[in-house]
Amino acid sequence: MNKESKHWKEQLHEIIYEADTPAGKLFDVVLLILIFISVLVVMLESVAPLQQVYGNYFNIAEWVITALFTIEYVLRVVCVRAPWSYIFSLYGLIDLAATLPKYLGLFIGNTEALFILRALRLLRVFTILKLVRYVGASNHLIKAIRASRAKISVFMFAVIILSIVLGTLIYLIEGNANSGFSSIPRSIYWVVVTMTTVGYGDIAPATPLGQFFATLVMIIGYGIIAVPTGIVSSELNDQKKIKTNTQVCQYCNEPHHDNRAKFCHQCGKNL
Amino acid sequence: MNKESKHWKEQLHEIIYEADTPAGKLFDVVLLILIFISVLVVMLESVAPLQQVYGNYFNIAEWVITALFTIEYVLRVVCVRAPWSYIFSLYGLIDLAATLPKYLGLFIGNTEALFILRALRLLRVFTILKLVRYVGASNHLIKAIRASRAKISVFMFAVIILSIVLGTLIYLIEGNANSGFSSIPRSIYWVVVTMTTVGYGDIAPATPLGQFFATLVMIIGYGIIAVPTGIVSSELNDQKKIKTNTQVCQYCNEPHHDNRAKFCHQCGKNL
Amino acid sequence: MNKESKHWKEQLHEIIYEADTPAGKLFDVVLLILIFISVLVVMLESVAPLQQVYGNYFNIAEWVITALFTIEYVLRVVCVRAPWSYIFSLYGLIDLAATLPKYLGLFIGNTEALFILRALRLLRVFTILKLVRYVGASNHLIKAIRASRAKISVFMFAVIILSIVLGTLIYLIEGNANSGFSSIPRSIYWVVVTMTTVGYGDIAPATPLGQFFATLVMIIGYGIIAVPTGIVSSELNDQKKIKTNTQVCQYCNEPHHDNRAKFCHQCGKNL
Amino acid sequence: MNKESKHWKEQLHEIIYEADTPAGKLFDVVLLILIFISVLVVMLESVAPLQQVYGNYFNIAEWVITALFTIEYVLRVVCVRAPWSYIFSLYGLIDLAATLPKYLGLFIGNTEALFILRALRLLRVFTILKLVRYVGASNHLIKAIRASRAKISVFMFAVIILSIVLGTLIYLIEGNANSGFSSIPRSIYWVVVTMTTVGYGDIAPATPLGQFFATLVMIIGYGIIAVPTGIVSSELNDQKKIKTNTQVCQYCNEPHHDNRAKFCHQCGKNL
Repeated sequence: MNKESKHWKEQLHEIIYEADTPAGKLFDVVLLILIFISVLVVMLESVAPLQQVYGNYFNIAEWVITALFTIEYVLRVVCVRAPWSYIFSLYGLIDLAATLPKYLGLFIGNTEALFILRALRLLRVFTILKLVRYVGASNHLIKAIRASRAKISVFMFAVIILSIVLGTLIYLIEGNANSGFSSIPRSIYWVVVTMTTVGYGDIAPATPLGQFFATLVMIIGYGIIAVPTGIVSSELNDQKKIKTNTQVCQYCNEPHHDNRAKFCHQCGKNL
Repeated sequence: MNKESKHWKEQLHEIIYEADTPAGKLFDVVLLILIFISVLVVMLESVAPLQQVYGNYFNIAEWVITALFTIEYVLRVVCVRAPWSYIFSLYGLIDLAATLPKYLGLFIGNTEALFILRALRLLRVFTILKLVRYVGASNHLIKAIRASRAKISVFMFAVIILSIVLGTLIYLIEGNANSGFSSIPRSIYWVVVTMTTVGYGDIAPATPLGQFFATLVMIIGYGIIAVPTGIVSSELNDQKKIKTNTQVCQYCNEPHHDNRAKFCHQCGKNL
Repeated sequence: MNKESKHWKEQLHEIIYEADTPAGKLFDVVLLILIFISVLVVMLESVAPLQQVYGNYFNIAEWVITALFTIEYVLRVVCVRAPWSYIFSLYGLIDLAATLPKYLGLFIGNTEALFILRALRLLRVFTILKLVRYVGASNHLIKAIRASRAKISVFMFAVIILSIVLGTLIYLIEGNANSGFSSIPRSIYWVVVTMTTVGYGDIAPATPLGQFFATLVMIIGYGIIAVPTGIVSSELNDQKKIKTNTQVCQYCNEPHHDNRAKFCHQCGKNL
Repeated sequence: MNKESKHWKEQLHEIIYEADTPAGKLFDVVLLILIFISVLVVMLESVAPLQQVYGNYFNIAEWVITALFTIEYVLRVVCVRAPWSYIFSLYGLIDLAATLPKYLGLFIGNTEALFILRALRLLRVFTILKLVRYVGASNHLIKAIRASRAKISVFMFAVIILSIVLGTLIYLIEGNANSGFSSIPRSIYWVVVTMTTVGYGDIAPATPLGQFFATLVMIIGYGIIAVPTGIVSSELNDQKKIKTNTQVCQYCNEPHHDNRAKFCHQCGKNL
């Protein structure tokens, strides 16, 4: 390719991938609106009365949006330096997933498996994942959650073991009481509903012993909800400490300095 | 205006806007009682059996309170130096909103739209916002919440995206099971009900796969409830740290110093 | 009174009010068991089938326990130096309240107001407050909660205002939908049930707008649950810091020392 | 025994008890898979339709797994140096409990007490406790929970007293309203369901006074959920602080030093 074409690609790259120029900002705003409309249409389509009346308009809106997302995808592939690395990146796959379902719907006739067609239609909700690009991966919250991953895994693992054991016990207690504890998996479902303090009430113990046991499960759940909270809290505290603790005084090696510090607060020398 | 009138205004200003004099304290107490009665009357009016029996008394009480609030509003406008800046301030608008609905009700006949009349009547509950004056905006809690606004927004944004994605998935799983997941918006409603651990039980999964999925949603909700808690905790901790650094540099007025600091970190001078 | 009697009183005082001697420990254990039985009997009495069969035994057990608590009360009054200050102390009133209801029941015939008789019977559950003596008021938890009282009051106040405003709004939205929002107090009840993530489901919004509003209320509730948690967390952290920070080095004024420290970690001199 | 047999035992010990060799890792993976299958079979057996169709296969799978676990148990006993201390250790008892129920089932005929047979079958779910070996007892989470045990006990004790008192009060208020508060134990069950924010809705207050009381209970519950969270949070923070003090005094082996410490606070020597 010649120089001019390269120049054109670079300009396009600036518009699509960066947000410093007015054109880049406009592109982002238009994209955000399109994502919003796209998700809204999928949601409204699922409401039977609306689908009956406005079904055609929804279909047209979807084709228009799919066409625009397709153009966006093609432009992204064209103007990026390493197209393949984009295509197989998380963002690339999400962008593709936002356009593909509508096209695939064409190949599957209405006579064929309705479930697949419906699944494909709903897959378009994942268009919303295009927003992930704007959240970014560099913020403190995600770092804190990532740093406490190991502890949270151990915690989750313990909760699952506990749920299975408690589920079996309540099944033994309430299994014959006709109160919904008809199998161990259902009883485990009840334990999770109770321990997480969700408490639907679709299954609830009927016998006094079962209710006493339920009380114990609730108090246990109440106690262990403190654990993930504590983990994330103390991790976020650490993140903050790290943020303020990078400078070390070269004269007295005092490591704790305010972010705005110009002089060491221990020896008064210039940092 | 002459001096005397000015003097009279100043005295009134002291009573209404300040709480150091006995008269000012009395004014505040009377106002608090009026607000309390006003809100109570609106609440009791909405209870059908009470309204049938005591409806007239409620109406009289409302007119009396509205009259008193109107006098208060007029006095506030009269005795303040910059009446317009008060009228368009938050407090001014709240004070006006506490009196206006009752008068507007006169212009709308009973034959006209009943909903508007009812809305107007209920608007009087906002009288309670007059209490905001007494809470003030300068306390640490509000500062901590304001400081963590950005993080909480990112968190809320992530929760909304997650709700939409999970809502679509549960709609796909339970959509045909006649268990209440009749559309995506309803399914999203269920996801929020479940993730926030509210768990009404008006909609609950009926299929084993749906219940398994619900279990996952609950555990996710249980995990992410830790995040806003962690944010506010660590923010409140920070607020306190700032509070304990009471030293202010006498050379450059820098107020934020480490507890152990001997030298100002901005100008390097001895503290 | 003569010396001997005084001696006898002192011995009794040691047994009843202190727990260092074997007799004192035995007294405490017996008292704990009696409290436990007393509360259990009141609880079981309220279960209709048990009351019908074992009613007489429950009555006898209650008279025995009441007699023993009466003896305990008289002994406490007798052996304490300042009987009146005990009688009107929190513990004295609780001890009296544990014995009085049974006697009062005698004066109220069965033919008289049944509700009062029943209330008296249930008052005996407050016997459990005798346990407060063993919890003590000097622990860190209670200090932390007391220290954060002001902040929690502001928070509670804000939650109540918010509940009233949101309750009125949902009443306006769902009031005609026959879904349980029949009055403002009931709607406020629903808001509290939802915001605290309890979620009974006895009242649940039926209209799409109501469900959307409910979603907002839940997310608000999810967000503000973080506030009391944050307050208590940071208060407990402070309690701990205070615990470890009382010694100050007299040579270099370094204030942060480990509880077990014998030498200053900054200048190495003896503390 | 001769040298060779000892050598064979040592090799086996390395495979079974350690995970550094490829054989040891393979053993662990196989064991994990067996545990997973074992628990899954017990869970699926409890689902009536699956049990009817695949009952025989489930029985065979159980016998195979029980046989394998028996072999594992025997090998563990044989190759360990102190067999009795293993047999009576927590892990030894769990390993035995994973195999015994199936054998005991043989001795109890089908004609005998069905409940015992069923309990025995379900006991096999405790096989999952074999996983405890892989979680280990040395991690920070467990340390933090253990360290805050005393505080959490006081908290739990207070919650139980509060539940009994509040349960009696709601029984007094709602006892005649036919809304499920038929006895004090049931009312206490409701208080726990409400205070822990579980909220099944199987029992819910029907009278206005009951609903007002319920509102209070919820707000109390909302407030006190902060307490265990705060305890665990501040304990985890402490754990971390201890972790960062990695310096150990070379003179007196004191391991806990402040980050800024220059001298050991136990012996005063230079670090």
